Amino acid sequence: MTSPINNDPIRNKPMDLQNYLKDKRALVEEAMADLMLDSDNLPNELARHIEAMRYSLFAGGKRVRPILCVAACESVGGTASKVLPAAVALECIHTYSLIHDDLPAMDDDNLRRGKPTNHMLYGEAGAILAGDGLLTLAFELLSELAADIEPIDRLRIINIIARAAGPLGMVGGQAMDIACEGKEIGIDTLRQIHSRKTGALITAAVQSGAVIGGASPEKFSALSTYGEKIGLAFQIVDDLLNVEGSTEQLGKAAGSDIKLSKATYPAIFGVERTRELAEQTIADALKALENFDEHSDPLRRLATYIVSRNN
Amino acid sequence: MTSPINNDPIRNKPMDLQNYLKDKRALVEEAMADLMLDSDNLPNELARHIEAMRYSLFAGGKRVRPILCVAACESVGGTASKVLPAAVALECIHTYSLIHDDLPAMDDDNLRRGKPTNHMLYGEAGAILAGDGLLTLAFELLSELAADIEPIDRLRIINIIARAAGPLGMVGGQAMDIACEGKEIGIDTLRQIHSRKTGALITAAVQSGAVIGGASPEKFSALSTYGEKIGLAFQIVDDLLNVEGSTEQLGKAAGSDIKLSKATYPAIFGVERTRELAEQTIADALKALENFDEHSDPLRRLATYIVSRNN
Repeated sequence: MTSPINNDPIRNKPMDLQNYLKDKRALVEEAMADLMLDSDNLPNELARHIEAMRYSLFAGGKRVRPILCVAACESVGGTASKVLPAAVALECIHTYSLIHDDLPAMDDDNLRRGKPTNHMLYGEAGAILAGDGLLTLAFELLSELAADIEPIDRLRIINIIARAAGPLGMVGGQAMDIACEGKEIGIDTLRQIHSRKTGALITAAVQSGAVIGGASPEKFSALSTYGEKIGLAFQIVDDLLNVEGSTEQLGKAAGSDIKLSKATYPAIFGVERTRELAEQTIADALKALENFDEHSDPLRRLATYIVSRNN
Repeated sequence: MTSPINNDPIRNKPMDLQNYLKDKRALVEEAMADLMLDSDNLPNELARHIEAMRYSLFAGGKRVRPILCVAACESVGGTASKVLPAAVALECIHTYSLIHDDLPAMDDDNLRRGKPTNHMLYGEAGAILAGDGLLTLAFELLSELAADIEPIDRLRIINIIARAAGPLGMVGGQAMDIACEGKEIGIDTLRQIHSRKTGALITAAVQSGAVIGGASPEKFSALSTYGEKIGLAFQIVDDLLNVEGSTEQLGKAAGSDIKLSKATYPAIFGVERTRELAEQTIADALKALENFDEHSDPLRRLATYIVSRNN
């Protein structure tokens, strides 16, 4: 399997990025283990609810949003430890969205990351509630962010993340996506679906890290642009993988989006033009960081990683 | 139809309370109209998502939680206007919980407050997303609370509400309730289900009002006890109404909880003992307010209203 995008010079240092990702993923997963509820000493019925949440949260995943949050914080001179509760909250929200998207009433997927989806193990009611629980827990974590972050900044992060995840953001994008199934839609609608459904939370991850890291208004604005561009690129590549990938690589049935006649970039532009679009979008993301120093190298490499990923 | 509880002296001033409820409900619903998203100028698919949320939010309801929040704020000398965004957020969370509880995978109810449930009009996917949207919007509203509330108090309210609504609160209670359907359960489990599923958010409504009103630690503690007791009484009376009420009064099929063999107070204690329990619980709630002045009269009457309600 070749990756969808091959011609990026920054990919010449693959080991550095792999080590960076490995380190940050370990950091994030350690924080997840610390901050996530466990099912000890709870009545059985409640313990099972907590287990349903834990099942999906710890089912693997690249932890892209938490790592972006950490990297954005570090890009403006902040320290990773301050940002970890927000990073975990972002992963809780991402995981809830996957659980609900996979439901029979939505995309009706049986597999996610090669494992049974939440409702296959915990039933539809259990999966709906596991998602609800993770979403709510995210805001509990955000309201408990480390005391060395100013309360006004903590409120700002809650606001950024709630807007990104809410009715005009991720939830609204999913609602649009479902409503457009089987319909012919134009590129404007497709862009809007992607920007809300995927882009908004990725942008919010970068913005949250920027706020906690103490970014100036200019840097915050540049990082927001970076977040929007990589969010868009992420979805374009996802569409490409859905056309080209195998079930094993995707961890879900290949072509499942096409089966449902969902709007995708390759369906509108064809594969070649879609690859070009992904490359151009990443170039835009990198341009947004042109006034940043070497602390933002991880963000630069993450941009390339997102389009070059093949799993 | 007689109300479940008849022997409370405070009910001798029914008109005062009715006017109070009418005034506060108008205040809360005005704030809801101001703060809720509208569907103007949105693409059709997204407008429909916003309409799904608005449908259930504005489908009536007694607005008990927002009114308790206002009354708690006023009981410690605060002004209602400061508390309204939090009151609206509480109603968003309550509404989301009703939408999800009514889903086919959960209680499978077709009617709520005498109107078709959300999924009957917007489909299962639409209803799941409408609930998700309302829950997320609640935290957006809470993060935007009026600037004249200290940021640290705003974070405290977010924390109180997130905990109450989350995996160890309302969502966990619903998960336990679903898991216990058709099973013989003891009184301890029943109490825990009620306390999490219904009591936690009602208590959080009172606590949020207390924080915004500037309650002392002692008053906060007393109001918390008041909230816990009326939350419990609320659910006990709900169980009684489900046995005794008509479909018209409940706005849902009478006896539907029994049909599903759900655990209820009357099923465990019988109707007479359940009425006594409700009365004792309200007496406990009133005792918690014994050191409060006349500003807490609305809270006292609300306690009685909750058990005397027959719709």
